[in-house]
Amino acid sequence: MPHIDLKNDLPGIRSAMAYSPKTAAPMNELAQVLLRSNEGLDRAERELIGMYVSYLNDCFYCHHSHGEIACIYLGGDKELVDQVRKDYNKAAISEKLKSLLAIAAKVQQGGKFVTAQDIEKAKQNGATDIEIHDTVLIAAAFCMFNRYVDGLSTTTPMDMESYPLRAKQVVENGYGAHIYLEKQPA
Amino acid sequence: MPHIDLKNDLPGIRSAMAYSPKTAAPMNELAQVLLRSNEGLDRAERELIGMYVSYLNDCFYCHHSHGEIACIYLGGDKELVDQVRKDYNKAAISEKLKSLLAIAAKVQQGGKFVTAQDIEKAKQNGATDIEIHDTVLIAAAFCMFNRYVDGLSTTTPMDMESYPLRAKQVVENGYGAHIYLEKQPA
Repeated sequence: MPHIDLKNDLPGIRSAMAYSPKTAAPMNELAQVLLRSNEGLDRAERELIGMYVSYLNDCFYCHHSHGEIACIYLGGDKELVDQVRKDYNKAAISEKLKSLLAIAAKVQQGGKFVTAQDIEKAKQNGATDIEIHDTVLIAAAFCMFNRYVDGLSTTTPMDMESYPLRAKQVVENGYGAHIYLEKQPA
Repeated sequence: MPHIDLKNDLPGIRSAMAYSPKTAAPMNELAQVLLRSNEGLDRAERELIGMYVSYLNDCFYCHHSHGEIACIYLGGDKELVDQVRKDYNKAAISEKLKSLLAIAAKVQQGGKFVTAQDIEKAKQNGATDIEIHDTVLIAAAFCMFNRYVDGLSTTTPMDMESYPLRAKQVVENGYGAHIYLEKQPA
């Protein structure tokens, strides 16, 4: 049960965002810019980083939501998403993405955990400055989103079939505030 | 030294934001909505919460920046700001703000650390739902800002006189993106 009366029955972050549309607008805009860009990292890589940080933060709603979104971008490869969650070093992803996930995991612990060696390794694996920047900010942003979702104890859907359905909507429509705030089909 | 070439000599988050104006815009907008509102919590309380979370995250740039901003709103009471940093339970602040700072400290650890008892105590001390919501989101947002600043290892000014000067600009002009991106007086 949510810690406060959010005045709606929406799940997860959508509930908090519907309660506070003024703060939802820039949060959605940030997600849109960070996760929908194809400059440098592609959308699947961006969602995998967000999913992985959410998993480390033990945010069930977020890591399943973004895991399903990543899955769509990966052509339905759910096993790959699960492997990144469990042990990304054994996943069939690029060495570059592995070293960026290592940076994201450090950011999840705290900004100062990121070392010059972590950055050097990512660069050696082909990561550009903007890709490192985006990785740090995606990881940092999910440390916000995850805390917002769980700090208010928003409702977590336990119907696992709802996540891929919602993911399809996000992939099609993006993270614009309207998709959280307007009336939607059930 | 910053982990990547940020292409400017600005300090702290301003450096990362100048490097990436597309993500800076919604981040500044979020700060503006969350920290400049006077609905429920006043601006001093909002800045104290942000300062305290930044202190817990060991983000020197952020806790000094927002400590100085809080100080201005508190009529220059630097000792009060320092006391909140060191041990807010002994500070001359309301019981309501103390219980909200306790919630913020839980959010800093992770969303799930916030308990129904923490919320109940804040409500007993007079906190409204929107004040609890804003506390959780301010704490969560600073977990992002702090990680962005330190995860990129942005430059931290060690000239302590620069912080109150900058704070005065923020108090006067707000967190609009223009104050980070446009040319400013030295």
